Amino acid sequence: MERVDGHPLSDEELQALDAYWRAANYLSVGQIYLLANPLLKEPLRPEHVKPRLLGHWGTTPGLNLVYVHLNRAIRQRELSMMSVIGPGHGGPAIVANTWLEGSWTATYPNTTQDEPGMARLFKQFSFPGGIPSHVAPEVPGSINEGGELGYSLSHAYGAAADNPDLVVACVVGDGEAETGPLATSWHSNKFLNPRRDGAVLPILHLNGYKIANPALLARIGDDELTALLRGVGHEPYLVEGSDPVEVHQAMAAAVDKCLDRIREIQVEARVEGEPVTRPAWPMIVLRTPKGWTGPRTVDGEPVEDTWRSHQVPLSGVRTNEDHLRQLEDWLRSYHPEELFDENGTPVESLLALAPRPSLRMGSSPHANGGLLTRNLELPEPAEYAVPVKAPGAEDGEPTKVFGQYLRDAFRLNEKHRNLRLVGPDETESNRLGAVYDVTGKAWVAGRRDTDLHLDPDGRVLEMLSEHTCQGWLEGYLLTGRHGVFSSYEAFVHIVDSMVNQHAKWLKTVNRLDWRRPIPSLNYLLTSHVWRQDHNGFSHQDPGFIDHVVNKKAEVVRVYLPPDTNTLLSTMDHCLRTRNYVNVVVAGKQPQPNWLDWEAAALHCARGIGVWDFAGNDEGDPDVVMACAGDVPTLETLAAVDLLREHLPDLRVRVVNVVDLMRLQDSTEHPHGLPDPEFDALFTTDKPVIFAYHGYPWLIHRLTYRRRNHENLHVRGYIEEGTTTTPFDMVVLNNLDRYHLAMDVIDRVPALRTKAVSVRQWLADQRVRHRVHTTRYGEDLPEVRNWRWGRPS
Amino acid sequence: MERVDGHPLSDEELQALDAYWRAANYLSVGQIYLLANPLLKEPLRPEHVKPRLLGHWGTTPGLNLVYVHLNRAIRQRELSMMSVIGPGHGGPAIVANTWLEGSWTATYPNTTQDEPGMARLFKQFSFPGGIPSHVAPEVPGSINEGGELGYSLSHAYGAAADNPDLVVACVVGDGEAETGPLATSWHSNKFLNPRRDGAVLPILHLNGYKIANPALLARIGDDELTALLRGVGHEPYLVEGSDPVEVHQAMAAAVDKCLDRIREIQVEARVEGEPVTRPAWPMIVLRTPKGWTGPRTVDGEPVEDTWRSHQVPLSGVRTNEDHLRQLEDWLRSYHPEELFDENGTPVESLLALAPRPSLRMGSSPHANGGLLTRNLELPEPAEYAVPVKAPGAEDGEPTKVFGQYLRDAFRLNEKHRNLRLVGPDETESNRLGAVYDVTGKAWVAGRRDTDLHLDPDGRVLEMLSEHTCQGWLEGYLLTGRHGVFSSYEAFVHIVDSMVNQHAKWLKTVNRLDWRRPIPSLNYLLTSHVWRQDHNGFSHQDPGFIDHVVNKKAEVVRVYLPPDTNTLLSTMDHCLRTRNYVNVVVAGKQPQPNWLDWEAAALHCARGIGVWDFAGNDEGDPDVVMACAGDVPTLETLAAVDLLREHLPDLRVRVVNVVDLMRLQDSTEHPHGLPDPEFDALFTTDKPVIFAYHGYPWLIHRLTYRRRNHENLHVRGYIEEGTTTTPFDMVVLNNLDRYHLAMDVIDRVPALRTKAVSVRQWLADQRVRHRVHTTRYGEDLPEVRNWRWGRPS
Repeated sequence: MERVDGHPLSDEELQALDAYWRAANYLSVGQIYLLANPLLKEPLRPEHVKPRLLGHWGTTPGLNLVYVHLNRAIRQRELSMMSVIGPGHGGPAIVANTWLEGSWTATYPNTTQDEPGMARLFKQFSFPGGIPSHVAPEVPGSINEGGELGYSLSHAYGAAADNPDLVVACVVGDGEAETGPLATSWHSNKFLNPRRDGAVLPILHLNGYKIANPALLARIGDDELTALLRGVGHEPYLVEGSDPVEVHQAMAAAVDKCLDRIREIQVEARVEGEPVTRPAWPMIVLRTPKGWTGPRTVDGEPVEDTWRSHQVPLSGVRTNEDHLRQLEDWLRSYHPEELFDENGTPVESLLALAPRPSLRMGSSPHANGGLLTRNLELPEPAEYAVPVKAPGAEDGEPTKVFGQYLRDAFRLNEKHRNLRLVGPDETESNRLGAVYDVTGKAWVAGRRDTDLHLDPDGRVLEMLSEHTCQGWLEGYLLTGRHGVFSSYEAFVHIVDSMVNQHAKWLKTVNRLDWRRPIPSLNYLLTSHVWRQDHNGFSHQDPGFIDHVVNKKAEVVRVYLPPDTNTLLSTMDHCLRTRNYVNVVVAGKQPQPNWLDWEAAALHCARGIGVWDFAGNDEGDPDVVMACAGDVPTLETLAAVDLLREHLPDLRVRVVNVVDLMRLQDSTEHPHGLPDPEFDALFTTDKPVIFAYHGYPWLIHRLTYRRRNHENLHVRGYIEEGTTTTPFDMVVLNNLDRYHLAMDVIDRVPALRTKAVSVRQWLADQRVRHRVHTTRYGEDLPEVRNWRWGRPS
Repeated sequence: MERVDGHPLSDEELQALDAYWRAANYLSVGQIYLLANPLLKEPLRPEHVKPRLLGHWGTTPGLNLVYVHLNRAIRQRELSMMSVIGPGHGGPAIVANTWLEGSWTATYPNTTQDEPGMARLFKQFSFPGGIPSHVAPEVPGSINEGGELGYSLSHAYGAAADNPDLVVACVVGDGEAETGPLATSWHSNKFLNPRRDGAVLPILHLNGYKIANPALLARIGDDELTALLRGVGHEPYLVEGSDPVEVHQAMAAAVDKCLDRIREIQVEARVEGEPVTRPAWPMIVLRTPKGWTGPRTVDGEPVEDTWRSHQVPLSGVRTNEDHLRQLEDWLRSYHPEELFDENGTPVESLLALAPRPSLRMGSSPHANGGLLTRNLELPEPAEYAVPVKAPGAEDGEPTKVFGQYLRDAFRLNEKHRNLRLVGPDETESNRLGAVYDVTGKAWVAGRRDTDLHLDPDGRVLEMLSEHTCQGWLEGYLLTGRHGVFSSYEAFVHIVDSMVNQHAKWLKTVNRLDWRRPIPSLNYLLTSHVWRQDHNGFSHQDPGFIDHVVNKKAEVVRVYLPPDTNTLLSTMDHCLRTRNYVNVVVAGKQPQPNWLDWEAAALHCARGIGVWDFAGNDEGDPDVVMACAGDVPTLETLAAVDLLREHLPDLRVRVVNVVDLMRLQDSTEHPHGLPDPEFDALFTTDKPVIFAYHGYPWLIHRLTYRRRNHENLHVRGYIEEGTTTTPFDMVVLNNLDRYHLAMDVIDRVPALRTKAVSVRQWLADQRVRHRVHTTRYGEDLPEVRNWRWGRPS
């Protein structure tokens, strides 16, 4: 690893940069501690200090250093740059810098660049009614809160994609660097095309400690660290030291070197006609003391350059006279009187160091991506719709047809370069392969002749890391572009915590009027629980829906389109929405087409409805058969078929649910059906047999307030499954047609005694199935060949 | 990277190994395809082939090669070795090998080592009523199913910990290697003490492809790959080729070299008195063709050495004459007639290559860890209990006291080396620091003078990767030892999918009588949602409980002890259980002690109960105030205090829930309360105001069948929160004492009109609080200083 030791700064420039850095440090300490007396115009007294001290000093001086030096580069090069701050606890640094540069005041005009503004800035930090201690959505220029740690690099790569003129400076904390998602996201550089995409400049901030431990990468020696970073495809430059003068010189030199190299790579790559190759992208390793310039020791214990500086180095300021003096000395060590004028406004020489307004990182439109969002040009979904002469007469392949629609969406938006499809390794397996007619899979690593669809210009991103896929897509959406994540249903749980954080981000931005809405996060979950009969139990889990519906109702939407045309309509809708997390679950296997395009579009618009073609209730059912999800819909219709054949006098109503949130109260979710409409569909007193795609309890959780809830009987996945046949999967979970029909007999009082022999026959079919399946390895012919509406 | 090219095998030995490998390959192909005619005694006909072809050929020949060569080393060195197979889809390989070596038949006596046994082995694979296609719990010798990918290495390190004589051979697939959890788990070697722990031998299997893509690590060039592996602390040896003769020689030489080096490292490290240092552990990179020895081309497309060999290379065998011939040729290319005798029994020369029974990897007791489990010697929890003169009169620090208990558990079991505490970086922050009195944090990386508690012999494992922590602990438990995972509540979602897989494993082993119960997976979730007022919204998420309760009821347990003594009793219980996932949520902040030891132990044994000291209902309440969780309990008691002061005639009953599953039906969960008991607690017709720790809907999901459900009103976390004060957190979510008291007034008919002024006063207090908090940054004194039972 090359240790950088150039001296590009003149004395004057160095002093100016150092003053700016001191100002940022002063403002950071002020945020953590001060409730009043922001300029220290009078001696510091206990009542000037916040009653609860909350914040993270440790990473802050390093972040301030980075920010100051990036500003220098932006000014000198007229650079379009944004920052992604992995050590999210370093909120004070980014708040301080965006205030200093003017972005904060531009965003929050009340927080002026003067003494009252500074006082407000200080007070609001980690204070009730104020802002969090992270680089949260409230911080202008942020797309990465960093509360959970691990996603900075993948966010940065998502932001850089399709933004050829953008450089994304990404600070990776050495704590964060230990997480799995971060560790593998280094490989994102194999998916970045230097011709088409922007650049990411990773800055690994090795300040050496986490909360109470050393950081691993700080303790493996420079040889291993260098090998590791070269191994992930980077050329690292080391900036190391604790003397500010030396570190400023080295950091300036390193930033210059890296940006020069990035420019060189891009110029080379952008020669038309040459093949795109993968360079070793430059990066910086910044090794400075944790809590740098803070108290060296407190109460006799070393603090600077140890984990003890992680949060608040002086904790007893309000009661401990020594701590109070130490704090005042610390604050005054930055010489605020040189940095701010009488009114608290940063002195001219500082203000001159901020980039011009449109280039300030805190004002980057990319970090308020909605500003840049352009609606997708979407094909007319009706043109892809499958013809349906009679419901259920023929099979369709939902994801395959949607793949054709998506192919043309790529085609229509090719010139805008604003759409991506991500997934671990499953675009083909999930039957979306049509997209490869117009675009490939991004790939800037080694190639072989037998490879298919690999292309540096590809718009499909596939890496066997759900975390990286999710991080890329979030970064892409947060910078205003569009995308779809296609995943096996069970394994999307891998990103549970990431979708949590994204949903929390969206909830927060809904309350920030300066943040413009961004395209929704669209999940297409296929290869779902009911068709993982081949992969078995470990691949069977429909619980992502349960996970998502706990997030704020204004943010989450869940759709279970039962066939090809409803999937088309649903996805077309989702791609037009903003600020949602849309979860769409749909199978990839051939399955009956129930609704023609018009019926599908209407059904999806309603989100829930009676399927008249299937029922015979004439407005007065004996039983309601409800279903949500493709396989439950199939089994429900097959059960209705059995019932109508064997119990022709029974009046059955079939209700299908596409938009799951229609089930919830209208007071709980904006899509919730008003009670009268719910009652009209489900009756107020008739048994309802509900066949549901996921864990059955979710339906109870959504409907417990409904009038007819006590008559609701839900079948769903009850964590039973293995490697078996498709029909056996539903049998194991009591969701099969025979069991649903038996449920009806058990719940409709008039049938209990009258239909004993039918019930026995149904039960026998289940036994026959098991015997047949375990003997021959396939389902009974009458199940495999069953079709709705065929004379039986 | 050193390419290994020794030739340690004599011709005879080489031929014998190759024959064993061919036998394993034959048995693997047989599993994927054959329903009958297992020895090809007659020409292959369509009806000999399974109707559905399910399985993964691509990784299988490489795994077979590895297994055969490990067997050689085990025999030659009398090695205690177990295997962890990352490419979990390679089930056929491990099933084949365990049958060949005799472990399968020892486990499943019906599947004999002869023709009928072979036929059974073939049929059962990926067949209804049979076994999954992964290295699932059904496979003897397995502790890593591999269905989800990413956890092999961390499992291997967990298994090696505290097993100094064990070598864990861990095959890492090049697909799996792209996942985040795997990518960071390479660093596990910084936590492995060569003196005390066993060794892990990673074998990176670079067969080059995933489902439909090249594998990244196969396409970054040998320089970067070598750098990467050295960077994570290994000395890699390359075995490469497609000529079996050469690869056998190289693989034998590489295995010898690595095991020699491991032995050398261990001998050196085990010299008493010398400091423990971290060596560069050897590992193998095995680069062989995907689908090696399978069909080169099918229907004109290249298959061997491409992704097309991932699953079933010949898919049309039942209908396509060419495919059928190709399959027969493929099977016969292994010369089964040389490998199995007339009866289908492996020939003597093969059987002689299996290790002796007790050393066979398929029979390793470590992989059936319950066999080796030794009960923990646990301290008497009563001795740690805090005295409680009056309920709520004094505060305790629950996790701090539990830390003292845990310290002594470490002390009592030190000689057995069978207990570990894992967590990302939070043992101290979660107030469990007392454990450092008797043990340290495992750490075999660089040290500095200022470090605290780092110790190669430490029993605490801290790495800022929840995935690695979870993987280590799972590996440790699955090999029969004990442990606790302490985590911030919000961020345990990071391992949602891992706990899914572990719960599925446990559900499956409950149905395998040869698998002995293992110690439970114990989560202590602290720094929970209600006390993340300082870290803010991104740190607030109580949804892990919701996630876990979807798993099989027989496996999951959830506890919410409300104070110090109940936490002690709960953890003491959990550490004694087997085959559960125990989720315990408890705060780390000082909070009232409600129950003395006797009351706490009794309350925890019941799991739910009336708190007579708090209520005044005399068996006939007007309202039931229920609570689960420490903060909800506090707010409930404070609300009761207000009600009893302002509405002294109101009869209030307080019910506290420790064991959340008591709420569910006894038919749904083994801990569920029978209906009459539930009704006795909650009444059948009185309003119940339930203050719950997590998302309120979960309580409805658990209780919707209960008779009094329609009178149940739940308050909980509704995804509102930010950086604020502790009391403001409950106010934002309507869980505060004032709101709970208002809920009572709103729900008890007699109060609605009578208590108007009290209700107004309560509402005013909420406003007062907000004004005070946002002005002063702390809670109202009457909230901060409130205590139960103090004259107000």
